[in-house]
Amino acid sequence: MPQIVMYPIGKIYSPYKKSKDIPIQGRFKDDVEAFIEVKKKYIKGLKDLDKFSHCIVIYYFHKSNKITIKGKPFLEDETHGIFAIRSPHRPNHIGFSVVKIQRIEGNKLYFTQVDMIDRTPLLDIKPYVKYFDSREDVVSGWLDKHFQNGEISDKTIIK
Amino acid sequence: MPQIVMYPIGKIYSPYKKSKDIPIQGRFKDDVEAFIEVKKKYIKGLKDLDKFSHCIVIYYFHKSNKITIKGKPFLEDETHGIFAIRSPHRPNHIGFSVVKIQRIEGNKLYFTQVDMIDRTPLLDIKPYVKYFDSREDVVSGWLDKHFQNGEISDKTIIK
Repeated sequence: MPQIVMYPIGKIYSPYKKSKDIPIQGRFKDDVEAFIEVKKKYIKGLKDLDKFSHCIVIYYFHKSNKITIKGKPFLEDETHGIFAIRSPHRPNHIGFSVVKIQRIEGNKLYFTQVDMIDRTPLLDIKPYVKYFDSREDVVSGWLDKHFQNGEISDKTIIK
Repeated sequence: MPQIVMYPIGKIYSPYKKSKDIPIQGRFKDDVEAFIEVKKKYIKGLKDLDKFSHCIVIYYFHKSNKITIKGKPFLEDETHGIFAIRSPHRPNHIGFSVVKIQRIEGNKLYFTQVDMIDRTPLLDIKPYVKYFDSREDVVSGWLDKHFQNGEISDKTIIK
């Protein structure tokens, strides 16, 4: 299968300057804000996205320079397959987050529930559609034991 | 920002041979099965993924050869920004779906809730983690009016 060439469509500006700054609860924090700046030529692509409460952000883990097939996640010392964890050290280094849209101003999209580091290259934005993207009766493998009773660890993610 | 080069990590084999074959309800269908075949060198990357009920599949819209900044989605005749719809004709042509894992056998992952066409190049698989990926109180913009009372259109997606 041939190679696929992509180009960043913008950049993510985050208050987290290093991987170790990102708390696990970052994903649930509504008081830390970041913004996406899309290239000027894509401004019209944002039309009507402000009518959604959340969006999917797909980005490039630019700080990772290795690929592991198995790895230890944040949260525990067990080894799992790379496709069963969210580590950045994965084939193609694609990152994925669901974030909460705050507002869109020109080519800037401000959001909370931040878990990316500063200056992350942006690959795509999609509307988060509950009918497609939310699921009930979800079993989350090795992660379930870490989130019992709705508790969230205060460790850092160390992505 | 420089280009980013990716390589498919496998391929998706689906009963849907053409875009027009994919029903919107495909995402909700548990009786249509497809499978992912990852390259042999990534088999160990699947370890423990079978303990999850769902996974995120990131792929390449290989049938699209154009980019539109605005577009009309399936379901309605209104024009929206490309980042507010799920059209394949987007910058970088990245596709995203949440699917239901049925079983993993060697380098094959069988799944339902299929909405990809046959022989789609695979870029990544991630575990679907309800604590990160599910959201309540979601507003889904222009889509909400099409899913009132839990109704799902029987149109095709025409991706």
